[in-house]
This record gives sequence, structure tokens and C-alpha cells, in this order.
Amino acid sequence: MKKGRQTYILDKKIYISHTATIAGVDEGKGRLRDFFDYVIDESEFGCKSHEKAEIKLRKHAIESLLKSASVSAADVDVILGGDLLNQLVPSGFSAREFDIPFCGLYSACATFGQALATGAILLSGGAERVICCTSSHFATAERQYRYPLELGTQPPPTAQWTVTGAGCAMLTTSKPKFKCPKITGFTLGKVIDMGLDDPNNMGAAMAPAAYDTISAHLRERGVGADYYDLIVTGDLGKLGRELLCTMLEQECGAVKDRVNDCGCMIFKDRQKCGLGGSGAGCSSLVFCSYLYKTMMEGGLKRILFVPTGAMLSKDSSLQGESIPAIAHAVAIEI
Amino acid sequence: MKKGRQTYILDKKIYISHTATIAGVDEGKGRLRDFFDYVIDESEFGCKSHEKAEIKLRKHAIESLLKSASVSAADVDVILGGDLLNQLVPSGFSAREFDIPFCGLYSACATFGQALATGAILLSGGAERVICCTSSHFATAERQYRYPLELGTQPPPTAQWTVTGAGCAMLTTSKPKFKCPKITGFTLGKVIDMGLDDPNNMGAAMAPAAYDTISAHLRERGVGADYYDLIVTGDLGKLGRELLCTMLEQECGAVKDRVNDCGCMIFKDRQKCGLGGSGAGCSSLVFCSYLYKTMMEGGLKRILFVPTGAMLSKDSSLQGESIPAIAHAVAIEI
Repeated sequence: MKKGRQTYILDKKIYISHTATIAGVDEGKGRLRDFFDYVIDESEFGCKSHEKAEIKLRKHAIESLLKSASVSAADVDVILGGDLLNQLVPSGFSAREFDIPFCGLYSACATFGQALATGAILLSGGAERVICCTSSHFATAERQYRYPLELGTQPPPTAQWTVTGAGCAMLTTSKPKFKCPKITGFTLGKVIDMGLDDPNNMGAAMAPAAYDTISAHLRERGVGADYYDLIVTGDLGKLGRELLCTMLEQECGAVKDRVNDCGCMIFKDRQKCGLGGSGAGCSSLVFCSYLYKTMMEGGLKRILFVPTGAMLSKDSSLQGESIPAIAHAVAIEI
Repeated sequence: MKKGRQTYILDKKIYISHTATIAGVDEGKGRLRDFFDYVIDESEFGCKSHEKAEIKLRKHAIESLLKSASVSAADVDVILGGDLLNQLVPSGFSAREFDIPFCGLYSACATFGQALATGAILLSGGAERVICCTSSHFATAERQYRYPLELGTQPPPTAQWTVTGAGCAMLTTSKPKFKCPKITGFTLGKVIDMGLDDPNNMGAAMAPAAYDTISAHLRERGVGADYYDLIVTGDLGKLGRELLCTMLEQECGAVKDRVNDCGCMIFKDRQKCGLGGSGAGCSSLVFCSYLYKTMMEGGLKRILFVPTGAMLSKDSSLQGESIPAIAHAVAIEI
């Protein structure tokens, strides 16, 4: 059922029955280490290139998910996947390993939100079981968007750290035998560009998009920010989160204690990962580990999960363009 | 309603109420010139870079669509868009010009099929009006995937020619006052990789994916190839089309007279555009001009539209990978 311009409230029950995660070396030393299903012990994961490693990360995550859900590939209707690399190579190349239809999605680091929303609407329309998977890799992102690692370039203070890892979730309309989180609705975001053009400060570029989507969601669903135990953005980092809270507080009053950000949650301060994690794998890794497990254990009942993305490319920045951003919100309740 | 593993047959009526196209200089000299809404007179379209030109092409197409449909941006639920460039820059940057939610999609040159399918399922789930738009540009694709144009590299005989242009379609659940084509179902494709690794022969790499999807569609829908007046693939080109027909004929008997390919339809032979057109804009441009208008005039009643895509990147080829391919099929009837 559509409710307002951007928001869909689902009639059917869409269960998130299982999740699987695989995290990089640094992520495995971070705050959420105990929540990951698997942590790799070297960043190339036994492969000949960073890109091949990211493909393998995804394959591992999807295989683990099928195994933990005791579902064969033939019982999955589609893999909805995305990542940050040119032509979505990790998503497409990992999907060829499975006898499952595939749709590639791209909203930069907001892709996991788009995947959950697309999955929910496909399930509403007759699909039975959908896998959503996003990933990123520090080394593939650095050399594609910034500099070769070998150059040893020092990041500026507003930079964030691309998360290495993949998170995937199984969505289904079949009621599982256990209690699990459900997707109850979602809000599709607009592309918002406030003219910021520093590719080393993406939190500031993305915060207005996160605000726009969250604000539309609350307005169209007709609830206050306090309807949710937690509003959790994708990868705004410390500065972006501050900016978002400032914007939201003008509308909803004090929200700081119920707004957090996956990028702020994943690393420890002493890991020196700039203003926090980023990447298409950041929000999926945090959701599919810590957030999902906390919901399963009753620690959170209702969350508004809002992955955020900056839609720039290397070329767009070199051509003097500013940074358009987007955020998609997904309401998840247990 | 789901029917079989990959195929969805829609209960709701999904109308393709309007289309808009903008074509490049060479396309404007090709076979379909009289069917395009607008033809640009120089490939940069008044912009400072090829990439900015592709952004402007899309903006122009979407604006024309809104105008011809007499619909304001506020009445559109989402733009579903994709293209071939890194991080979908043309799609994301053109979407920021409209006050409309956006979802980026990527199946390489099969993206328009994914967009129509995703639009149809969103409309089935409550959306009222969706824009699907894909584009490509010869010069942006050449310099991203191959060589700078300035180098004057000669293409090998199996190469195709990336189409410059954008095609977009308005999907709606509101019955228009005139008779127009409807999307009655779709089949989501799998990633198929037969081990071919020549990035200058993508027709051969994509033909097996087209065959796999068409075969699944006919089997799951329970119809023969003769149910459709035309089965039209995206951009297999002359060689890929031959290969597809050979594969299909083993299953369905003689099909050559009812199988065609957008890449084979767009240029004249004497234009020397290799084995035919390609690019994410190829299938959308041909569908939104010639195919749509022919359906409107009664020349075609039922088509199976099957955009095809090769999921490679420059980096994947340099790292010795083969070329995974995908095709999504959309059944369109009037």
C-alpha cells in the first residue's frame, strides 16, 4: 500500500529470516567483532587481486546464508546486489556462481536500503524468497576512487574508511518457526545535491539526503521520531551524524539519543579510521550482524534503517561536479 | 502473480502510456530516424564533456516525457534509471534535476529490461506512475571501456557501436484515454558465463544469456515462440542474433522471422557501425521509438522485449576474467 509520495507500507508480512556476514581484518578488530559470522585473516582473502577478493567475499556470504537458512539456490527467486565498483563487477561476477536470477542495484553506499525495499516489493508481488547482498573492500575502493595504496597518501581529517566486508539477508514471505524482524515499509529517497564538492567529506554531502528521506518517512507514515527505538543511517560518519541531528532536531526535538550511524558503530576510535566507516558493505555488515542480532534478542523492537550514498565518480569530481547524495529508509520491526 | 521460477505474470494492468527519445547524430542518420522525437546535431550537445552531454541527454528525455504526458514531477513516484558509466553518473546526476525519488539499476545493456520489470512490480505494489530511463553515449563508452577517441583505434570486425541516446517510458496504473501497450509479465535473467573473454565480441558472450531467459520465459509462461509477433533482444548484433536463432531453433523450430535485435535495427549497413548498435541506450531508444509507435499503430500486438547485457568492466578484462552476461525479458501486449 502506498502512503504518501515516497513511502510504501506493506500489507504482506516480509520476514528477514536469516542474515550472513563476512568482515575484513580491521572490521574484525572493531567494536562489532563478536557479531560477525566470519572474519578474514588477510585482506586479499587468498586471491590474486583486491577485486577478486571482493567477489569471493560476496560468494562466501551468499553461500553461508543459503547454508544457515537450509535453502537451496533453486528456492531463491532473485539476488538483489550491489557494490561500489565500476560496472558492479563484484555483484555480477559473484552472481554467476549461483543458479539464481540477478538484479544489479546502485545507490552507492545506500544500495542495501534499495535492495531491501526492492526485495520487499518483489515479495509483495509474488516472489517467495529473495537475497539482498552488498559489499565493499577498502583496497578496491581506494584504488578506484582515490589513489593506489602503494602511494601511501595521507587521508584528510574528514575522510572515512571504506569497510571491507559483505552482508546479506534472506527475505521471505514464509513465516519462519522463530520470531524474526519484518520489513513493514520503506521510503525511496530523492537525489539531493547541496553543492558540496569535497570527495573527502562525504558525510556532509550525504547528511541532507538522509534528513530529506527520514523527514519524508516520518511525515508520510504519520509517526514521530520516537516511534522508532533507533534511527540508524548508513555511513554518515561522526560529522555527518552531527549535521543530521542538527537538522532533525529543528523538526523533531531532541533525537540524538535515538539516532546513530553504522559508520560510527563499526570501528573503535583508536583504530584511526577517520570519521568512521563507509562503503556499500558498511550498512549491510552492521545491519546483518549487530542490528539484526540485537533485534532477535529483544534489544531493539523498531528501527528505521537508512543507508546513505554519495553518487560521485572519480570522473565527476575531476570534471568539477558537486556530490549528489541519496538515502533510502526501511522500517524494520519485530 | 508468480509463475515458475523466474517469471511474473501481472494481475494489475500496467500501461506504458508515453515514451520519449533523444538520439545521437549517427542514430539520426540510421534506419529509425523518423521514429525519434529529437535528434541532436553534434555529439557533445553543447556541453564541455561527453559525460555532461550524456547527463543532458537524459534530462532532455525525461523533461520531454513529463511534457508529453502532461504530468508534473510531483505526480511521479520514482525514476528507475541506469547507464553504462562508472557509478551511474549520468543517471544519478540527471535525477538530481527532478524532485522525484530515484533508484539506480545496473544490468549493463540489459538495464532497460530490469527497469521495466522493477517499474511493473512497484506499480503492482501501489505506486501510480514510474519513469524508466536508460542511456548511453558512444564517446563516454569508448573512453571508459576501450581507448580515447583521439587515438583513432580501429575496431575489430566483431565489435559493435555504442548507441548515443536516451529512451524513457512512463508506466502507470491509471488507464489512459487511448489504447496503449501494457506490460503483462516479465522474466528475470540469471548471470550466464560461457567462458568467452573477447570484449570486442559481446554478441557471442550475451547470446547464451538471451537464450536462457527467453527459454525460461516461454517454458514458465507455457507459450510457444509463436505467441509473440516479435522476440526482440537488446544488442546482440548480427553475430549474436545468429547464435541466438541457432539455439532457439533447436527448441522452438524456425524462429528467424520472428526474432530480431535492436542493435541490428538501428543503423544502416552503409554506416559501418560494426555488427550493430549496443549500449544501455540501444534497447530503450529502439523500444521507445520504433517498437512502441509500431505497437500503437497496430503493426505489432505482442512482443517479448529482451534487453541483453555484458557485465564486464575494463578491470575485469585486464585481470583475465571472462564475460558474464544477463538478459531480462518483458512481455508487452496491446
